[in-house]
Amino acid sequence: MTETADLTATEALAAIRAGRLTTNDYLEACLDRIAAREGTIRAFAWFDAATVRRAAVPNGPLAGMPIGVKDVIDTADMPSQYGSPIWAGHRPRSDAACVASARAAGAVVIGKTVTTEFATRHPGLTANPVNPKHTPGGSSSGSAAGVGAGFFPLAFGTQTAGSIIRPAAFCGVVGFKPSYGTLHRAGMKVMSEALDTIGVMARSTADCALAMGAMSGLDYGEPTVKAPRAPRLALVMGPTADQAAPETLALFERVAEACRKAGATVTPIVLPETVTAAYEAHAYVMNMESAEALGWEMAHARAQLSPTLRERMEWGAAQPRAKLVEGRAAFAAARAALPGAIEGFDAVLCPSAPGEAPEGLGWTGDPAFNSLWTLLHGPCVTVPAGFGPKGLPLGVQLVGRIGDDAATLSWAEWVRAAVG
Amino acid sequence: MTETADLTATEALAAIRAGRLTTNDYLEACLDRIAAREGTIRAFAWFDAATVRRAAVPNGPLAGMPIGVKDVIDTADMPSQYGSPIWAGHRPRSDAACVASARAAGAVVIGKTVTTEFATRHPGLTANPVNPKHTPGGSSSGSAAGVGAGFFPLAFGTQTAGSIIRPAAFCGVVGFKPSYGTLHRAGMKVMSEALDTIGVMARSTADCALAMGAMSGLDYGEPTVKAPRAPRLALVMGPTADQAAPETLALFERVAEACRKAGATVTPIVLPETVTAAYEAHAYVMNMESAEALGWEMAHARAQLSPTLRERMEWGAAQPRAKLVEGRAAFAAARAALPGAIEGFDAVLCPSAPGEAPEGLGWTGDPAFNSLWTLLHGPCVTVPAGFGPKGLPLGVQLVGRIGDDAATLSWAEWVRAAVG
Repeated sequence: MTETADLTATEALAAIRAGRLTTNDYLEACLDRIAAREGTIRAFAWFDAATVRRAAVPNGPLAGMPIGVKDVIDTADMPSQYGSPIWAGHRPRSDAACVASARAAGAVVIGKTVTTEFATRHPGLTANPVNPKHTPGGSSSGSAAGVGAGFFPLAFGTQTAGSIIRPAAFCGVVGFKPSYGTLHRAGMKVMSEALDTIGVMARSTADCALAMGAMSGLDYGEPTVKAPRAPRLALVMGPTADQAAPETLALFERVAEACRKAGATVTPIVLPETVTAAYEAHAYVMNMESAEALGWEMAHARAQLSPTLRERMEWGAAQPRAKLVEGRAAFAAARAALPGAIEGFDAVLCPSAPGEAPEGLGWTGDPAFNSLWTLLHGPCVTVPAGFGPKGLPLGVQLVGRIGDDAATLSWAEWVRAAVG
Repeated sequence: MTETADLTATEALAAIRAGRLTTNDYLEACLDRIAAREGTIRAFAWFDAATVRRAAVPNGPLAGMPIGVKDVIDTADMPSQYGSPIWAGHRPRSDAACVASARAAGAVVIGKTVTTEFATRHPGLTANPVNPKHTPGGSSSGSAAGVGAGFFPLAFGTQTAGSIIRPAAFCGVVGFKPSYGTLHRAGMKVMSEALDTIGVMARSTADCALAMGAMSGLDYGEPTVKAPRAPRLALVMGPTADQAAPETLALFERVAEACRKAGATVTPIVLPETVTAAYEAHAYVMNMESAEALGWEMAHARAQLSPTLRERMEWGAAQPRAKLVEGRAAFAAARAALPGAIEGFDAVLCPSAPGEAPEGLGWTGDPAFNSLWTLLHGPCVTVPAGFGPKGLPLGVQLVGRIGDDAATLSWAEWVRAAVG
């Protein structure tokens, strides 16, 4: 039987409506789990059980559902420290727009979750809940680990390269990066205006649909309602196919076979040069825009940046501005070319990450299978799809056209069910 | 002879390089002007002469040039109050990205300039420097008035509908809204992600080019260098032609004649329906995104919002989400259609505002001639072009294709010179 803390929000809300559970029991189960495992997992940048217990439980579609908030997103009642000593102790006056939306929908902010430094590379202390000797991935490290560990059913993540999809896959949870621009970024520590996208993590696609629908007012459907037909999937290993680990190659053989057995067509395709060329521009746009965003930190607190980030920001600031203009143009061209490249397909099936979560907490892994999809601005979903040779979770990623968020979530659920 | 405080930054820097002026003399001339007129103009939301005098004058292309910062843009050493009592006394920890860029280029932040409430409608106390019984326009009220009054040669503005171009025209200064996304919005109180654009105000096109080039690293050319030929101008009175006051109709007869006399072609064109349809969507996108941005204020401090803003935000929050999705799609379609609609033309010539600045300080005027161009994301420049029947300044606006910023500034200067 599923322990209470491991119920999804959808399951918990159904149990609450049926009178089998109270929001308070569910919250206490989460708090118990946190008490038992946070010492090992270190998902939180800030957590205080008393504060959470004092929070009123409002009404709404997410009434009483605990949500973890990645610490690059502002909260009025908790510190927001962006994973950087430069912002130690920072207390914003207001909630970010997405936090205000979550609270308006009834969610209870349970704490701030660990982010890598400004959502870039330099990691926090969070461990993978499946095996604490491995990274949970990043940059949304604490959100992914906390959802995986049963600390909270829902969490905010943000993605500039692969910061939602990769950690979700590493921790065995569902990650959803909606179409670019779905949730307002006011009150987020934005690094790249062209790329940064707020999304969610959960233990089911239904929870992602529930949370996103409640916060945005868009209809994300019910991913678990059986689709009337099987999907036509474009299998894309992408311009970084050579970075797929053996466990990922084996996974994709299994997944393709399972999908075909369940009635899908799975057709390997090669993306046109216009699309893959944008992948090369990603590092320019991301680092040049981020260097601009961190202008104050670079001028006034350079010594408190990690050497890695400092070096990247100095590199970004030193590039000729033409590289940024060209990069944004390459992004736009790739976005315009994608629909033609995947015409006739319902969604793209692709890896969520190179392989299992790397060992150690010093490196959160590579976004090689994420950057391209982030810059294309369409919805990306990772669903758990088995385990690798070290027993760590593997995910598969479904990607859709801009605006096809509900369908993409639904096909991701279809694939998850087919893989079993 | 031009008084020292009325020198443009370009002129002041030339005089400093030639040894005829010191940065300190220029700053003191600005401070004297402020002391003499700020009681009437009220351009500043925050100003302290001692703080400004203490600021080190760094090197760079804007070395020692005073810049006013609209109070929706964060500064680490001055309050940032967003034109709202909700944010009274707020002291951000960091400078906004654009402020960091300005300081890195050598500019000296001279104070925070009055904005309407969150850069929307509810006005501050700022008066028009040409006639203090009239509004300076908004939302960048203090930046426009302060540049016009000789308080500072440069200022930041932001535009969601007409918040740079209109006040600049009303105050008789040059306003420049660059292509969307040119200056990073980190540290700005963003309302509409799809629309908000940071730009500059100055007393010459050359100063706009100087400041934008210094901050962005892009090449804005030298607008005052004589163009090798006269422009082909598309005259667009736009979907709001019926809102042009008599003085604007008379102005455009004069301007068209002067441009033709100087060798330009001036061809009235009607924009295609795809472009003008987007104008109708502007209010939906602006108010729905702004309502999301102000989610915390609406939940926690609703009584401290002006009744006008509260009503607009409640309206925005109540619209079906489909209106936002459709509105953004209409914007994208209009952007795609514009190049075809103005093929063969160098720039669009159009009104900057309906007419002279309205009398009284209760209403900053209508952005009827600005919203369309803002959502099209191309560069917009207003240059002074004479006076109306009440002796208040009139501007004319030049608009270009996305990325054609340098050329648009240059054609604006050409038109200004032709009009004389």
